[in-house]
Amino acid sequence: MKNKVNQGRFLWNEAKKIIPGGNGLLSKRPDRYAKDIWPTYFSKAKGCQIWDLDDNVYIDMAQNGIGTAILGYADDDVNQSVIKAINKGVNTTLNAPEEVKLAQKLLELNPSMGGVKFARGGGEAMSLAVRIARTHTKRDKVAFSGYHGWTDWYLATNLSSESNLDEHLLPGLEPSGVPSGLSGTAFPFKYNDIDDFKKLLGQHDDIGVVVLEGARYDLPSADFLKAIDIESKKRGIVVIVDEITSGLRMSESGVYRLFDFDPDIAVYGKALGNGFAISAVVGKKKVMDSAQDTFISSTMWTERVGFVAGLATLNKLTDCRVYKHLIEVGTHIGNGWGELAKKHNLDIFITDYKPLITFKLNYGEANNPIATLFIQEMLKRGYLASTSIYVTYAHTIEIADRYLENVDKVFEIMSDAIINNKILDLLETEVRTDMFKRLN
Amino acid sequence: MKNKVNQGRFLWNEAKKIIPGGNGLLSKRPDRYAKDIWPTYFSKAKGCQIWDLDDNVYIDMAQNGIGTAILGYADDDVNQSVIKAINKGVNTTLNAPEEVKLAQKLLELNPSMGGVKFARGGGEAMSLAVRIARTHTKRDKVAFSGYHGWTDWYLATNLSSESNLDEHLLPGLEPSGVPSGLSGTAFPFKYNDIDDFKKLLGQHDDIGVVVLEGARYDLPSADFLKAIDIESKKRGIVVIVDEITSGLRMSESGVYRLFDFDPDIAVYGKALGNGFAISAVVGKKKVMDSAQDTFISSTMWTERVGFVAGLATLNKLTDCRVYKHLIEVGTHIGNGWGELAKKHNLDIFITDYKPLITFKLNYGEANNPIATLFIQEMLKRGYLASTSIYVTYAHTIEIADRYLENVDKVFEIMSDAIINNKILDLLETEVRTDMFKRLN
Repeated sequence: MKNKVNQGRFLWNEAKKIIPGGNGLLSKRPDRYAKDIWPTYFSKAKGCQIWDLDDNVYIDMAQNGIGTAILGYADDDVNQSVIKAINKGVNTTLNAPEEVKLAQKLLELNPSMGGVKFARGGGEAMSLAVRIARTHTKRDKVAFSGYHGWTDWYLATNLSSESNLDEHLLPGLEPSGVPSGLSGTAFPFKYNDIDDFKKLLGQHDDIGVVVLEGARYDLPSADFLKAIDIESKKRGIVVIVDEITSGLRMSESGVYRLFDFDPDIAVYGKALGNGFAISAVVGKKKVMDSAQDTFISSTMWTERVGFVAGLATLNKLTDCRVYKHLIEVGTHIGNGWGELAKKHNLDIFITDYKPLITFKLNYGEANNPIATLFIQEMLKRGYLASTSIYVTYAHTIEIADRYLENVDKVFEIMSDAIINNKILDLLETEVRTDMFKRLN
Repeated sequence: MKNKVNQGRFLWNEAKKIIPGGNGLLSKRPDRYAKDIWPTYFSKAKGCQIWDLDDNVYIDMAQNGIGTAILGYADDDVNQSVIKAINKGVNTTLNAPEEVKLAQKLLELNPSMGGVKFARGGGEAMSLAVRIARTHTKRDKVAFSGYHGWTDWYLATNLSSESNLDEHLLPGLEPSGVPSGLSGTAFPFKYNDIDDFKKLLGQHDDIGVVVLEGARYDLPSADFLKAIDIESKKRGIVVIVDEITSGLRMSESGVYRLFDFDPDIAVYGKALGNGFAISAVVGKKKVMDSAQDTFISSTMWTERVGFVAGLATLNKLTDCRVYKHLIEVGTHIGNGWGELAKKHNLDIFITDYKPLITFKLNYGEANNPIATLFIQEMLKRGYLASTSIYVTYAHTIEIADRYLENVDKVFEIMSDAIINNKILDLLETEVRTDMFKRLN
């Protein structure tokens, strides 16, 4: 039934000739999935359905806009608000009143905070947050855990030792083009590891900023957050919680709100505009006011689309209690995977952050070939699939159940391939590459 | 006839309580114009008309979206393309084909270039360009002229000496929050000053990157560009021309194309999406391919709205030869100012970059009070006015002529106020602040 042309593959080859890496985001590169058969480009998307350039339609049980489409693709409520705004002009000599309204809404959802600054991208917002924090503490050094984007402050970690980021999603990555003067300004610590955190602070008594993710695949432990809180307050450290990936999915704001945890700054992005480009730095008033002691200004931050999309998205997230749906469906899928893995004797581990439900294969070097086989066989059945799913409001239990019926068949194929050692024989594509491991 | 409530003023006071500085861009702050009477917020905009929150309508003879609305506000062609795309989804797991099409179009317009990377904002794109250049040359030091945004590489200049940027639009600005390790990585040289440029290169033989504006108020001299070309090629320096402000207004691409000048990278922003957030780094293939040796990736760079807006804008700019219109109307306004200044004995100087036509008052300390009086009196006549105008495709000669009739009357008031030393008496608002001089 599938149109076989794969115009997407052709276009990708054209793209790679003129766009280094082929596009602007590693997570949208086809070699991360199933290089030779992945559709790569979309023409249309709605809810959790997506059409490729050959007019094949898929259900997205994978990245759902790399976490941006929290309400589902082309959500009517968000789109109507945005289109209304576009017809009235988006970027003028005067300001968009929605900038203030979105700031007010974010402060309502983050009641310990008192100031907001907006940007467009996640990496950009993190860079802005770190600038404000450094201005506030007058200290350059940052301790961090997890992944926080492409900008200099973060990649500087690898200047002192290429293995510094090994535990932080960017193994072996070259910090080329990051000035050597930034060496010794950023230091990683392990997530949920109080000892490692305290050890780091002990080694550098001039750390002024602590950055951590709200959650990634694991939720933070209450003790870990408590330790960060206490140690940071004792030392006058500004704590930034990066909720770009984790935020809006486990509560109406950040994961941090589920704990007795009091960060100085929370950063939102990805899902904030349901796909439209908007990010926000939300912080304590005293800390945020330091933004006025440095120079932070950009024309595109004041464009209206982002604010309007953010407002419409937050309103719907709140009104519909979307996070409850995401947790419910994520839990359902995770349980389904668990049962099916048991049925087919597959050795997998399922992570505990439900709205971005993930299974990890436990086959060492064979993990990527097996995952590629999973992606390949699910594609044939009309699914964009991967080993993790950003659940959206458009994913119903029924959609999840139909998906799991297909997973049942594909897990059987995988299991059989593992037992008979014929994984590579079955692959009709190159094996997927690891996250962040290869940039070509 | 004017509604006097000024809801904008009220909202601005609310904004300042929760957004440090009140908004995300200095150039949209009311104290830059006429603090107490400036409408500050818009509800609607079309062509070169703009409505405030009290439903007063103005003709924008000032910043026109700080240079973004090159075709006029809410351009039908651009908006229709964007709305069509929005209905089909903007940010999915797969890529938007328009990313490739916009890259192709940009390379068509910049025939010496071979690679493109996209971002959303101007400062962000410059930061990306500098990262790529540093990666390519493996040298940290940057020589630059002019204004290039909020990010660390640029503000680092002021770490070594607070007066370093004095000639570059950011006088006395504190580089707070920029790590001290970046001291000695960025050095300014004067625009159109070959000796200053050569002197700087002589002082630092390890400069790897040269950054300059395509134009600001002055056009570059052919000799200046020639010298940059020769010296940079001799030393293996990567040359970045920042066309964020200047680009698309004097030719179908950058101002650099009007000269025998061969930069390695040209950066576009502002007008590229007619107000929608999109920016682009366009460079020589060999240089751009260095992007693959470092880590550059962000979710929001792959959102579709920017690409679609960019394509529709570039197509219309090319089809309608918009730059010719901008030069024609800008020249007409500049000539008009000149005649009226002569008529009223006002001492002004008119700059030579016509699409951003600017007059500079020559009254020393009185410049800002006089400019404020101009803005105030033009506001009363239904104009958003300032001492410079980003001309748009929506500004006709007729609109310019009606504007000049009003300028005639206001120049008379200004002239009379100067002669009778009653400028401050006439002001119904605080005096405007200098560009970039104050952050509050």
